Amino acid sequence: MSISFADPATLNHDQLEEGTSFAPRFDAAGLVTVVTVEAGSKDVLMLAHMNAEALALTLETGIAHYWSRSRAKMWKKGETSGETQQVVELRTDCDQDAIVLVVNQTGRGAACHTGRKTCFYRRAAVHDGVATLEDTGLPRLFDPKQVYASKA
Amino acid sequence: MSISFADPATLNHDQLEEGTSFAPRFDAAGLVTVVTVEAGSKDVLMLAHMNAEALALTLETGIAHYWSRSRAKMWKKGETSGETQQVVELRTDCDQDAIVLVVNQTGRGAACHTGRKTCFYRRAAVHDGVATLEDTGLPRLFDPKQVYASKA
Repeated sequence: MSISFADPATLNHDQLEEGTSFAPRFDAAGLVTVVTVEAGSKDVLMLAHMNAEALALTLETGIAHYWSRSRAKMWKKGETSGETQQVVELRTDCDQDAIVLVVNQTGRGAACHTGRKTCFYRRAAVHDGVATLEDTGLPRLFDPKQVYASKA
Repeated sequence: MSISFADPATLNHDQLEEGTSFAPRFDAAGLVTVVTVEAGSKDVLMLAHMNAEALALTLETGIAHYWSRSRAKMWKKGETSGETQQVVELRTDCDQDAIVLVVNQTGRGAACHTGRKTCFYRRAAVHDGVATLEDTGLPRLFDPKQVYASKA
């Protein structure tokens, strides 16, 4: 990891929120939350996490890298499925504990492991006081059984 | 809280990812992460969290409610600033631990406490191996000192 970040503990409130130092406020697990948005369509593709190494690798290579919490390892998005993400822009928020990553989604254009373009393919509805989900109808752009089984 | 959700522990993997039960997977602190997006522009306005009560209130009232981690209390967005958010759609992701909330941003159109439209007003750049931030030039739609001081 050759790219370095500032330490948020060295910044005051105004420097953190209005300054030019990139000082990501990693949480107790060493992670920031990342919202990945498709350039052009502006669709929210997925929500994931980065540690300092993943953030540095993403900036260095221009290819999205996350920290997989479920597998507890570095995750070059698309390494198995081929659906890599080319970074267009990386933004942080006022208190620097969140990232918006604007990307070009390569491959078949499916960011979600279910084969859909985005992970957010269901909307909430309320019927008689019970919250339910409705499919928004996004097609599967690949068959997850085939894509993941063949490389398992 | 009158709206109820399913318990994710009662669902199998396929029911969680493909089913119609809304079973938010709240984390150890009882929270899910929420990405708030403006209807129309599709700009990511902010990233915040909801507990079950905030999620239920949001669905019940059609007005965005979050759980403020810093103040450890229910947060009806815009209660102080007047910048409330009207819910257009609420979506969840494949494994139901994240929410995309599509809203109409009311008031002066500023979701961020700094007075800007969105919290993501700085982009990362790398110079000589050091990550820095550049202002994207979003104007302040209100003066935070005035808005928050007058109601403190």
